[in-house]
Amino acid sequence: MQTNLAETAFPPDLLVELRALTGRTKAVPLTQDLRAAVLSGRLLPGTRLPPSRVLAAELGMSRSVVVRAFTELIADGYLDARQGAGTFVRPEPEDASPGRGDQEPVHPLEAPLLRVPARMRLLGGLPDAQLFPRALWARHYRAALMALPDSELSYPDSRGAEALRCALAAYLGRVRAVRTTPEQVIVCAGVTQGLALVCRALRRAGVQRIVVEDPCFGPHRETIVRAGLEPVPIPVDAGGLDVAQLPVGGVGAALVAPAHSFPTGGTLDGARRHALVAWARRHGVLLVEDDYDAELRYDRTPIAALQGHAPDHVVYLGSASKSFSPALRIGWIAAPARLAGALDVAKRFEDMGSGLLEQHTFARLLERGEFARHLRRVRPVYRRRRDAALAALAQLLPQARPAGAAAGLHLHVRLPAGVDVAAVRRAAYDRGVLIEDAAQHSAVPERAAPAIVLGYGSLPESAIPNAVAILRDALAHAGAR
Amino acid sequence: MQTNLAETAFPPDLLVELRALTGRTKAVPLTQDLRAAVLSGRLLPGTRLPPSRVLAAELGMSRSVVVRAFTELIADGYLDARQGAGTFVRPEPEDASPGRGDQEPVHPLEAPLLRVPARMRLLGGLPDAQLFPRALWARHYRAALMALPDSELSYPDSRGAEALRCALAAYLGRVRAVRTTPEQVIVCAGVTQGLALVCRALRRAGVQRIVVEDPCFGPHRETIVRAGLEPVPIPVDAGGLDVAQLPVGGVGAALVAPAHSFPTGGTLDGARRHALVAWARRHGVLLVEDDYDAELRYDRTPIAALQGHAPDHVVYLGSASKSFSPALRIGWIAAPARLAGALDVAKRFEDMGSGLLEQHTFARLLERGEFARHLRRVRPVYRRRRDAALAALAQLLPQARPAGAAAGLHLHVRLPAGVDVAAVRRAAYDRGVLIEDAAQHSAVPERAAPAIVLGYGSLPESAIPNAVAILRDALAHAGAR
Repeated sequence: MQTNLAETAFPPDLLVELRALTGRTKAVPLTQDLRAAVLSGRLLPGTRLPPSRVLAAELGMSRSVVVRAFTELIADGYLDARQGAGTFVRPEPEDASPGRGDQEPVHPLEAPLLRVPARMRLLGGLPDAQLFPRALWARHYRAALMALPDSELSYPDSRGAEALRCALAAYLGRVRAVRTTPEQVIVCAGVTQGLALVCRALRRAGVQRIVVEDPCFGPHRETIVRAGLEPVPIPVDAGGLDVAQLPVGGVGAALVAPAHSFPTGGTLDGARRHALVAWARRHGVLLVEDDYDAELRYDRTPIAALQGHAPDHVVYLGSASKSFSPALRIGWIAAPARLAGALDVAKRFEDMGSGLLEQHTFARLLERGEFARHLRRVRPVYRRRRDAALAALAQLLPQARPAGAAAGLHLHVRLPAGVDVAAVRRAAYDRGVLIEDAAQHSAVPERAAPAIVLGYGSLPESAIPNAVAILRDALAHAGAR
Repeated sequence: MQTNLAETAFPPDLLVELRALTGRTKAVPLTQDLRAAVLSGRLLPGTRLPPSRVLAAELGMSRSVVVRAFTELIADGYLDARQGAGTFVRPEPEDASPGRGDQEPVHPLEAPLLRVPARMRLLGGLPDAQLFPRALWARHYRAALMALPDSELSYPDSRGAEALRCALAAYLGRVRAVRTTPEQVIVCAGVTQGLALVCRALRRAGVQRIVVEDPCFGPHRETIVRAGLEPVPIPVDAGGLDVAQLPVGGVGAALVAPAHSFPTGGTLDGARRHALVAWARRHGVLLVEDDYDAELRYDRTPIAALQGHAPDHVVYLGSASKSFSPALRIGWIAAPARLAGALDVAKRFEDMGSGLLEQHTFARLLERGEFARHLRRVRPVYRRRRDAALAALAQLLPQARPAGAAAGLHLHVRLPAGVDVAAVRRAAYDRGVLIEDAAQHSAVPERAAPAIVLGYGSLPESAIPNAVAILRDALAHAGAR
């Protein structure tokens, strides 16, 4: 970040800090205090100090006293005078930086997945930032902010802005066949927060165990555990959750992704939907529907949300993260009426509601059909990328078995038995490509068949064959060991 | 919200929903399906349908079939044709609305405080929306969004954007004498989420009980309980927390607001600060510092944050809610290094990080000194409002005893013994003024001496005498019963 070096641009709030020195009339205490502030880290390296005459006036000292203090501290190496730019707290020496702190150096692949740097990222669930309509979003953000009455520019309604709840209720009804009302919608910070809020509300209601798909989006299991619930994994196949294996009791909820199970991409078929809802009704189980990427569907048949079949038994979770941008952290819950109040209260005591201005921005885009236009624009782009990924796999890695291609931003790719996925991952990473081991999404990773999640969302179509070629090389390299 | 009625403006995504009807060639099934969609609430009242020729083309039907379906449904009252505007799902009859659902009508004063409508709001902690620099914020939001590399317009770092963590570490050091590094800062959705994350991390570390000030900001007790901890109230007086009453064991943390206890406004004095830190060190207790409104200080002596005295024993919480706007939900944690990792992980599994774009916007304002300029602009405004409130109380309500005036956006106003604060509140509300019963912030509200929180932040200076006059009338009215 560039610092503006104009004379008026030193941080004026620095004066508040330095004012604490008021009353000192000698240079020595000022020197000592400034040195202590630098040594203790209160004044960070690079901080620009006020010009001596400004500081002198603020502290009620003569300017010469301040100049003397600055001169001494520059001589001692605490401050730095830069010609024409001012006086700064001196940056730490270069060679001190690497050894700073006591952190062990870790291999990038050991870091949280989203923080691993890589030239090409084939992670699941990442949309293409280039497709985000920045100018449109900024324009509507400004318009939303300017239109907001003063009385509403305050703490948000913890359920979310009414305009967005209305727009979402209508949108979800049209596009996902969700049956809800604005009073039952709670805006939250993505599906993950939605799940955390629902799980804690369930825990408070006495629920202890929740069915999850196996595999399912791995981090959700940790979110569930942190909310005090125990996940009960039930296998998934190409037809979605294997409902025949559902327990007959002892669980109070079930988290399912009926439209596009993650990461296998299975879709819950009609017969299983009915069986799942019947099971939920019979045992008084709440179904938690994770509808994370359903807007990105590439075949002609829309798969309606499960919620529409049984609105009283399903709490629906969705977000703008895949369809629009995960940087916004905009998500939503559509809850049965009996649960909506508890979720509102939970959200209130958790964070007092989500940021208001981007809520109003998103509401404007929904109301004006801009979001639908965005989806119509990006769907064919992602479909072509998916087709490119499938074609490249067929040509370069015929032994791989891709699945889950009907929707979303990723493929689930089974690799031949015996492949060491960790070695493939390392070899691919050494060649600039970051891939995801599908096993991390399994309840028992050691037992998972070798597979990767191949996210094609954030790569241009033209780069996909190259990425798959690198994957082939990585596979050959890992297999050769 | 106004709906754009231009012909192209019907929600194009409606087609996705209606496409499910493809293949029907008779008007009767189309009529039935549309009727079912309206009855079930999937098509909400007011939804605009596509023009008949567009829908016919999409569904592969002849237009006459669609027109016939529309005509029948209009005749039956499901749809509404508006001349020149299109065909809409008919709004529900007016008289059906009030009885809808099974909610009891509640008095506005029984609703959550922030949702109670009122002409004048004297709530604590509300800044003036008119002072929020909308144009400046929108300009920097746009600039931040446009400058962001594609690679960063994705899931945020769960700790927060690096630019903001750097800017906050420097800012907090300068202005609050906080000693921290960008690696120890976690950006969160306000102090409330910061507290929730800290409490859950403590609970996971085995902590069961946490000292809270009595009184303290009431909702924090509920946030603490929901995180699985038990609050242990310790009395506060004008000198802040009464450290002599701190327990000698059995608590793992203490939540304090040393600069400006809420709502009494007490400031922890120097001797008590030292005693508190010594107690924390002796018993291995983590101090949680709630520094919610410290930037708004009206006397000349800045009160440094407690954190600077003992960075290894204090986790610091702050936000932009009082100093800037609570609509943004921007807050921050500066944690001891040993806790920062756990909070990062907690934030990741809670909501995968806070919204990125407003983080970068706020970072720009901090880096460029714009935030400091904002504070210099608003401090004198709030100080004049505080002075007006004190003057009006002295003149109109000499029996009231205001306290906590040195900082923030509210006064704590003791009322004469025996006053029925609930009755005063109702009488004030009937006269258009919403006030806050201070007792809700006490651990045992029934035992609290009669007092109100008088927030002057969101009222123009000129309106304050009138508001206090209404309060006097309300007091007289309530006393006369």
